[in-house]
Amino acid sequence: MAKSTQLIDNEVFRAYATYAAIVLIKMMLMSLITAYFRITRKAFANPEDTASFGKGDSAKKFLRTDADVERVRRGHLNDLENIVPFFGIGLLYALCGPDLSTALLHFRIFTGARILHTFAYLIPLPQPGRGLSWAVGYAVTISMAYKVLSKALYL
Amino acid sequence: MAKSTQLIDNEVFRAYATYAAIVLIKMMLMSLITAYFRITRKAFANPEDTASFGKGDSAKKFLRTDADVERVRRGHLNDLENIVPFFGIGLLYALCGPDLSTALLHFRIFTGARILHTFAYLIPLPQPGRGLSWAVGYAVTISMAYKVLSKALYL
Amino acid sequence: MAKSTQLIDNEVFRAYATYAAIVLIKMMLMSLITAYFRITRKAFANPEDTASFGKGDSAKKFLRTDADVERVRRGHLNDLENIVPFFGIGLLYALCGPDLSTALLHFRIFTGARILHTFAYLIPLPQPGRGLSWAVGYAVTISMAYKVLSKALYL
Repeated sequence: MAKSTQLIDNEVFRAYATYAAIVLIKMMLMSLITAYFRITRKAFANPEDTASFGKGDSAKKFLRTDADVERVRRGHLNDLENIVPFFGIGLLYALCGPDLSTALLHFRIFTGARILHTFAYLIPLPQPGRGLSWAVGYAVTISMAYKVLSKALYL
Repeated sequence: MAKSTQLIDNEVFRAYATYAAIVLIKMMLMSLITAYFRITRKAFANPEDTASFGKGDSAKKFLRTDADVERVRRGHLNDLENIVPFFGIGLLYALCGPDLSTALLHFRIFTGARILHTFAYLIPLPQPGRGLSWAVGYAVTISMAYKVLSKALYL
Repeated sequence: MAKSTQLIDNEVFRAYATYAAIVLIKMMLMSLITAYFRITRKAFANPEDTASFGKGDSAKKFLRTDADVERVRRGHLNDLENIVPFFGIGLLYALCGPDLSTALLHFRIFTGARILHTFAYLIPLPQPGRGLSWAVGYAVTISMAYKVLSKALYL
């Protein structure tokens, strides 16, 4: 009956839950940053979003793309492409019973790399800043996937 | 041995599984709606998709964007950006042992808000209909994340 | 205390972990393929990515879209739209205690269909190759969702 509260008593799973929640919240923040840039840059995708600026041509000119908005959106999509695999593979990894210290190392490096990646994308930092932070997060996820497949493989 | 069937006996986890499945199916429906608009509007993204309309220029004119197709696609991407965090944070939340009634409240409000969001996007409803339904779902997810972090925090 | 290692001892869950890891890794590969095409086609989205090609107009001409890059990106987004629901609904399904043989059938068909889908998208194969492989994966996910809702329903 209390099964669902027992998993969360496991230290590796608690660490996973903590870092998974942090990176998912970080990903959600991209929505707020997109909204901020859409409003300050007056660059919208939907006609109904520009209704408060008047009707007809005076509103239609705000239906446009803006370089800053598109940059945040690319960062958001990159988060989806990388944080979603981390969440999924990380969950399976946490259930594979890794050492706590090894697991923490994976979770902390991934989380740090993705936060760096966001700053590198939004500031933007010169390359290879963004590329390297992306690669580090990618490598951490692959490392966890290797552990999952070597521990759980059942084809 | 039967661990995997015991988690599903937990009422909070069953509620999570139910609402998570509903919003994921809702998200999947966006693919069908996109396909419907692509076919009825004759607006495709890949040359091979237009082959049945003939060859050369007669087919090439269907390689275009259409306002309705793009609207559904934006709705689909917004679902990915919001339903994925709900799925992930909601799973961790359900494993944190919340009260059943509190959990149900979170799951029901999120699910209702996202269904409203889809209607607001596709009809479309005037703002702030879509904005509010987005914000409600967002706030529910943040509320669950707060519970996860306060219960499981292990940095 | 060792709860997290017991779930992974369940054969259905091990099969789920295996196939979920495989399709998530497959999805992650799309990032590498995108990077490969961006570099070989010299087609970038961010000004800082073209800095190594020189300054000013000589670098700016590489800020462009390329048909091959866009094709891989559409394939990647399609993966997100389909593999994420598989991961989520598949997890709930695996916890619902299905027969091992039925579960394996679902996981194997989905994984095969998505790998076919990627080849159909990238080669590209004539339709309905891509459409059918998409539909098969979609149907498998809906079939698992039906099982989850009929087993866990708690509204």
